[in-house]
Amino acid sequence: MKLAVLGGGGVRIPAFIRGVLSSRAAFDEISLFEPDEFRRQTTGRLAVELADALGRPGAVRLTSEAEEALQGADFVFSAIRVGGDRARVIDEEVALRRGIVGQETTGPGGCAMALRTIPVLLSYCEVLARCSPGAVLINFTNPVGLITQAISLHSGVRVVGVCDTPSSTLDRLAGFIGADRDKVAFSYGGLNHLGWITSFTVDGQERIGTLLDRYEELRHFDHVFAAFDPAQVRRLGAIPTEYVYYFYEPARYVAAVARAGASRGADVLRLNSELLSAIMKAFGTGGVSDAWAAYSMLMGVRRDTYMRTDTDGESQQARARARRKAAGPAELGGSRPGGYEGVALQVIDGLTARSPGEVIVNTRNGASLGFLDPDDIVEVPALVHGGGVSPLAVGQLPRSAIGLITQTKQYERELVDAAVTGDVGLAALALAVHPLVPGVTVAREMISEYRERHGPHLAYLR
Amino acid sequence: MKLAVLGGGGVRIPAFIRGVLSSRAAFDEISLFEPDEFRRQTTGRLAVELADALGRPGAVRLTSEAEEALQGADFVFSAIRVGGDRARVIDEEVALRRGIVGQETTGPGGCAMALRTIPVLLSYCEVLARCSPGAVLINFTNPVGLITQAISLHSGVRVVGVCDTPSSTLDRLAGFIGADRDKVAFSYGGLNHLGWITSFTVDGQERIGTLLDRYEELRHFDHVFAAFDPAQVRRLGAIPTEYVYYFYEPARYVAAVARAGASRGADVLRLNSELLSAIMKAFGTGGVSDAWAAYSMLMGVRRDTYMRTDTDGESQQARARARRKAAGPAELGGSRPGGYEGVALQVIDGLTARSPGEVIVNTRNGASLGFLDPDDIVEVPALVHGGGVSPLAVGQLPRSAIGLITQTKQYERELVDAAVTGDVGLAALALAVHPLVPGVTVAREMISEYRERHGPHLAYLR
Amino acid sequence: MKLAVLGGGGVRIPAFIRGVLSSRAAFDEISLFEPDEFRRQTTGRLAVELADALGRPGAVRLTSEAEEALQGADFVFSAIRVGGDRARVIDEEVALRRGIVGQETTGPGGCAMALRTIPVLLSYCEVLARCSPGAVLINFTNPVGLITQAISLHSGVRVVGVCDTPSSTLDRLAGFIGADRDKVAFSYGGLNHLGWITSFTVDGQERIGTLLDRYEELRHFDHVFAAFDPAQVRRLGAIPTEYVYYFYEPARYVAAVARAGASRGADVLRLNSELLSAIMKAFGTGGVSDAWAAYSMLMGVRRDTYMRTDTDGESQQARARARRKAAGPAELGGSRPGGYEGVALQVIDGLTARSPGEVIVNTRNGASLGFLDPDDIVEVPALVHGGGVSPLAVGQLPRSAIGLITQTKQYERELVDAAVTGDVGLAALALAVHPLVPGVTVAREMISEYRERHGPHLAYLR
Amino acid sequence: MKLAVLGGGGVRIPAFIRGVLSSRAAFDEISLFEPDEFRRQTTGRLAVELADALGRPGAVRLTSEAEEALQGADFVFSAIRVGGDRARVIDEEVALRRGIVGQETTGPGGCAMALRTIPVLLSYCEVLARCSPGAVLINFTNPVGLITQAISLHSGVRVVGVCDTPSSTLDRLAGFIGADRDKVAFSYGGLNHLGWITSFTVDGQERIGTLLDRYEELRHFDHVFAAFDPAQVRRLGAIPTEYVYYFYEPARYVAAVARAGASRGADVLRLNSELLSAIMKAFGTGGVSDAWAAYSMLMGVRRDTYMRTDTDGESQQARARARRKAAGPAELGGSRPGGYEGVALQVIDGLTARSPGEVIVNTRNGASLGFLDPDDIVEVPALVHGGGVSPLAVGQLPRSAIGLITQTKQYERELVDAAVTGDVGLAALALAVHPLVPGVTVAREMISEYRERHGPHLAYLR
Repeated sequence: MKLAVLGGGGVRIPAFIRGVLSSRAAFDEISLFEPDEFRRQTTGRLAVELADALGRPGAVRLTSEAEEALQGADFVFSAIRVGGDRARVIDEEVALRRGIVGQETTGPGGCAMALRTIPVLLSYCEVLARCSPGAVLINFTNPVGLITQAISLHSGVRVVGVCDTPSSTLDRLAGFIGADRDKVAFSYGGLNHLGWITSFTVDGQERIGTLLDRYEELRHFDHVFAAFDPAQVRRLGAIPTEYVYYFYEPARYVAAVARAGASRGADVLRLNSELLSAIMKAFGTGGVSDAWAAYSMLMGVRRDTYMRTDTDGESQQARARARRKAAGPAELGGSRPGGYEGVALQVIDGLTARSPGEVIVNTRNGASLGFLDPDDIVEVPALVHGGGVSPLAVGQLPRSAIGLITQTKQYERELVDAAVTGDVGLAALALAVHPLVPGVTVAREMISEYRERHGPHLAYLR
Repeated sequence: MKLAVLGGGGVRIPAFIRGVLSSRAAFDEISLFEPDEFRRQTTGRLAVELADALGRPGAVRLTSEAEEALQGADFVFSAIRVGGDRARVIDEEVALRRGIVGQETTGPGGCAMALRTIPVLLSYCEVLARCSPGAVLINFTNPVGLITQAISLHSGVRVVGVCDTPSSTLDRLAGFIGADRDKVAFSYGGLNHLGWITSFTVDGQERIGTLLDRYEELRHFDHVFAAFDPAQVRRLGAIPTEYVYYFYEPARYVAAVARAGASRGADVLRLNSELLSAIMKAFGTGGVSDAWAAYSMLMGVRRDTYMRTDTDGESQQARARARRKAAGPAELGGSRPGGYEGVALQVIDGLTARSPGEVIVNTRNGASLGFLDPDDIVEVPALVHGGGVSPLAVGQLPRSAIGLITQTKQYERELVDAAVTGDVGLAALALAVHPLVPGVTVAREMISEYRERHGPHLAYLR
Repeated sequence: MKLAVLGGGGVRIPAFIRGVLSSRAAFDEISLFEPDEFRRQTTGRLAVELADALGRPGAVRLTSEAEEALQGADFVFSAIRVGGDRARVIDEEVALRRGIVGQETTGPGGCAMALRTIPVLLSYCEVLARCSPGAVLINFTNPVGLITQAISLHSGVRVVGVCDTPSSTLDRLAGFIGADRDKVAFSYGGLNHLGWITSFTVDGQERIGTLLDRYEELRHFDHVFAAFDPAQVRRLGAIPTEYVYYFYEPARYVAAVARAGASRGADVLRLNSELLSAIMKAFGTGGVSDAWAAYSMLMGVRRDTYMRTDTDGESQQARARARRKAAGPAELGGSRPGGYEGVALQVIDGLTARSPGEVIVNTRNGASLGFLDPDDIVEVPALVHGGGVSPLAVGQLPRSAIGLITQTKQYERELVDAAVTGDVGLAALALAVHPLVPGVTVAREMISEYRERHGPHLAYLR
Repeated sequence: MKLAVLGGGGVRIPAFIRGVLSSRAAFDEISLFEPDEFRRQTTGRLAVELADALGRPGAVRLTSEAEEALQGADFVFSAIRVGGDRARVIDEEVALRRGIVGQETTGPGGCAMALRTIPVLLSYCEVLARCSPGAVLINFTNPVGLITQAISLHSGVRVVGVCDTPSSTLDRLAGFIGADRDKVAFSYGGLNHLGWITSFTVDGQERIGTLLDRYEELRHFDHVFAAFDPAQVRRLGAIPTEYVYYFYEPARYVAAVARAGASRGADVLRLNSELLSAIMKAFGTGGVSDAWAAYSMLMGVRRDTYMRTDTDGESQQARARARRKAAGPAELGGSRPGGYEGVALQVIDGLTARSPGEVIVNTRNGASLGFLDPDDIVEVPALVHGGGVSPLAVGQLPRSAIGLITQTKQYERELVDAAVTGDVGLAALALAVHPLVPGVTVAREMISEYRERHGPHLAYLR
């Protein structure tokens, strides 16, 4: 079985490869496609050497040619970032300067990112459909829902969008309540980064009421719950997943970033730059263990500071660095895959019929959310099995959630139209539909500014 | 047949009375309830004397007792404004200062107004249900949809909410296209101040496409269409009614008010104050004709400057005054009722079975908009007849409109809950659901500030 | 204004013309199209001479050319019966012999009638669309829903289907309960001859509970309610209209016809034959008054025996004749139009904007019944006005009614497909979908037998 | 893990026990509850001794006390037949004599069976809820959907209804088309014995079109497809499961039984009687092998003649006996569980989290079929896992199927009401709702006759 990775030099890839190699998934070959040479020499090389160190020499290969990577692939992961970290900073700035949510995936930031990404990814999909017509594309590229929507509507490739936010939220809730995760049934639904948990049963007993009642405790138990107002959550009767924060607290978020003085994107840009240099340096003076040590330390800092700027108004990076330094680097071997790669491997285990089961994925709605269209991409639990991805029936969501989902999905559909037609006017009209964008006039301004600042990446918009 | 008017000293009332007296509706008695003495002496007196001047001496009476007005009433108009024009200025300021839409009926402004109004109006409804159990309350009090929702759910009074925005929009479209209004069929639906026209047929031929194609012309034809982006409207495939502007251009609106230097509320406060003084003065030195002349001139200025600040960034009051002065005062007699009173009289003509017909009203949804609940108050065309109000089936609305309506109706339902329970926390949570409010933190701040600044009117919120 | 009547020699036409001439509808010209000479000499002549007698000489004309009648028409009534009364007897026999409901409009009988009628009526529609493109066709031809469905989907003609069953049921209920009909609001919905009343308010007070509680009384009050089981109706929570009897009591109906020894169709064949002879004879020996006397007496007998065979197992014709003879003939002048023509005239009054109002019609569903498609023809209350026909939103129907309507509408859609494609196999498959047909094997047998016995009328089915 | 079986002396139980003992499900104890002594001495004893013979001595126990069986049970199978085979013959006769479908589970036959069963099974549920509150009841008792509906609404027991019809149909389709069953995804939905397959993909490619195109072949491939008219199935665009035959061909079925001269129930009564005698005799003269040989031969005859009478008009029993005799008895050991028990074991494997997966079950609808209520029991694919049973979202069904399902579910809900209230009138009204029952008059007659002939079993209906 061959796995291809688009964006094979991404900073998450070494950890990802380590997870994949530690999993049951029997990949004979993993081909990392990365056009950037510096990336190939740093994160790419680290991934390749990790395979050697973990006893799978030759299992991972690097290439600068997409077609070479995609040829004969059974599964493809997409983790590309068109324009790199620098583009993300622009995405955020253009919005934030206007007092608008400038998050990577949500609102104008996600819009700009999607506009850069869709044409590129659709062109890879053309190659894939030609080279390996039966392959399944597992999409991590953000904004996951939007990108998956574009591929689903405008390519012949089978695609599943993956994000670990909802499943990790469920894991944390099970941990909080002391429930055996295997005994949990839940109801979750929405779009990527815009989903709610409306039911949580353990051994057939509904516990959502308990979770809502104890929401203050939950906030202390885990940072992902801390951003929400407990009274609001209780009134809602459902637990929002973390990214809903940007819809529930846009003004607080904008103020927090202003207080911090730098957006998450700016911090990540610096962190990643440091990370690549550190890997380069480690390989210059030592071997894979040194590179892994530097890598795992800085990735740990990155993880520990996640969403801190947006919710707390300070990145807390210094504290995170101190803590990580004290703890020392992660071991090179033996990790059970978690996060994105964990979900992706569940999808593969299901699709290869090795272990069919329930996975929350971004997939065609069918009849899962009755208020959307069958071909809308939604984020819902699905049975993933040898025959494909079959969404579960999602129960009633809160009415205000239905409102936000409806509008956001319309934005997504219109933005995909804009990207595939290259119509700059449509892009602005699409952005104006987004719940976090205060009107069409400002949407036009922002699209215009994005187009100017992102240069060749958005030059196709006319 | 007896008509009672709650808020009988409102500035619209003299014109309203003039319209009613010129209509087919056979009211033997019109009782104006007005607790404020200065109002009774100015607008109230003007209304009473207009009746005399129009040959209906004694038809209109003033009272400071609600029960006296409501006793034996067949129909009741509610046009109260709790807190007066001064409160409106506060409503707008608190939002505008935060860069949030501070409009009278939409967003935080409408929320504060509703919170002041609901308890007062529900207490009148209790009196009415006792005094005149069969009476129908025709509600003009803004925000019309929200107030009608509260009365419908929490009183035993039959209520119909009335606004002339959609019908006047349809009239203008017919005028633009040169169609006989009698030959027009249309599809309109939404909530009060949040409605869209999705079909417009003349003699059975669909003309909405023509209207959308010619939207640039339409903007010059009539100011109510001027605020919208033609490309956006075309993409939408439906014509939004004027108040949708606040949802489609919140940032532009906030900037426009800043440019103008004063909100519409501030201008209206000054205009009304001038108006009352002018009436007082006219009665001091002359008679009803002088008072009417002063009144009609200033009301004309008010009408001519409507929405100018919000869309254009200047009130254009000077120009309006000059034009009105040049034109001279309106004649005292003979006007056919238009605007709010025109719609209200259509409702009365229907309910008394004199002339059943189609009227756009705010009423229980039933099955009219399939995505809302039967007991949600919606603004839709209905057959108004001797048996009551029967909503028409409204066709498909644009998906982004469904999103906005869904969320806004949820806000309305939650705000009504807050008002009837007097729960200040619920009020903030409700406000946070509004599409124009950027989060729960800022909603809490605004509710808290409203509570402080509106003194006794919001002291019941705890 | 010109009215054309297709099937101008139908037995109902003289009464119909008398009603139309007594109404407010200002027809300058009424053109009766009737290809059968004997009909023209009897009922046709009676209609023409009635106009003279009522002071409108020349207003009614007879023609044997469809195009002549349709040329310049503003409204067209269709009352054709392809194959005449003899065909109806076959329609009923083929089903009854198999123990299946053999009613004129419902089940196999209606299916055969529709198959004969659709091609003929669509050919007239082609002429009409060419001659008088703006005309509105008011369809009485049974089965009204099915025929209207065919015209709506397969011609360019504006069509409204009309039946007086639901409105007359509502009138009777108002009479029973002593309510002013003007103060009644109701909820009614379904298909033609398959509709239910689920709400009945008087002055805003729901009275359906009272009607259900007193259903035994209602059965004695009026024969149209007598066929139903009171406990069943109460359990249902809605009042079925009379033709639902064939769905609720098919076995009882079949047994009743067997007991009576002759189906309604056979009785009507004899009565009509007698009627035409009597008119012929009256004109031979006397004038229009004699012809009218004979006509009105026999039409009275027909009306008085309506549904008696089907529900009671005897036609009670002898008793009806005796009663009518004793009462003497109806007066020639002065009748207010009722029944079908009353409803048709309401439609015309609405469409000409003379008197817009609520009429129960067969029209495009739009969003009226949420569980059907927008282009399904349904029978619902609609606002009929100068702009066209706008259906009201129909509230929740009983679930078993939804089941019957869903299946029956599917039968109708499939039968229309069969008729327009001329596919005999599709006709059988369509008939098999009908709730009263026990399977596809028997449906094939019946279609085959109809095809054989109806000769040229069904020869197009291959 | 303890398994209790209600109806432990049923004729299917020995085969069932053999299957369970050959499966992965680790039952330490299987307790068969059987009140009838003759059954305990025959099928009961055979089941017990099969366990010994298969190397699990003592694993199976017999008891005549329900509480003893249910105490401490983790799972309970219900396979009771109140009134035994003799009652089934009455169920069928009462309907057939009137020319109405008299099938065991569908129509009047199923109605009578449900009325006998519901009170008895609900009383066991009370015991179970008390003794073993966490246990899951897996219901095989027919009519499965109706009985599961009753338990779900009127007991505190967790229940899953199981039938192998849809899964075996899917297996056969996969076999026909040569597809790896693991690569198949499908859409199936409806009620028990009233379900349709609307999609069938292999490796992500839709194949339903191929299956419909080749339906004639399919009929020869497997008898379960033979009963349907290929043109009808193609027009439908979906593959009905076998019991839909009774809805699609009621007249053909009634004629077939008449031709055969004995209903399936009468044949089964004789076969079972012969079976019990043969077991008794075998144990008298030999041991478990002899009893199993006699048993497996006669059960084979039973299986081979399944539905033959109903579709072909002859039972073909002689031929089946000859074939089975020639083939010799089935081996005692080694069978992989199939049929009902196979599905039940999949449910257990899922619920114990040993092997979560997709199983078609009868369960609460939730949002699976959008046109039914959340608490309706439906037959749909569900993910069965440690957390419970989560239905998949079922895509669009054919409209005529929606009609039949809607009406049949309403019948089921009303019949459950009748059974739990013991109201004989309600029972007749419920039966009248069934699509195969020609009216309320005949429904009353049948309920009355059932009540008389079933003596004590239906004496509770008043």
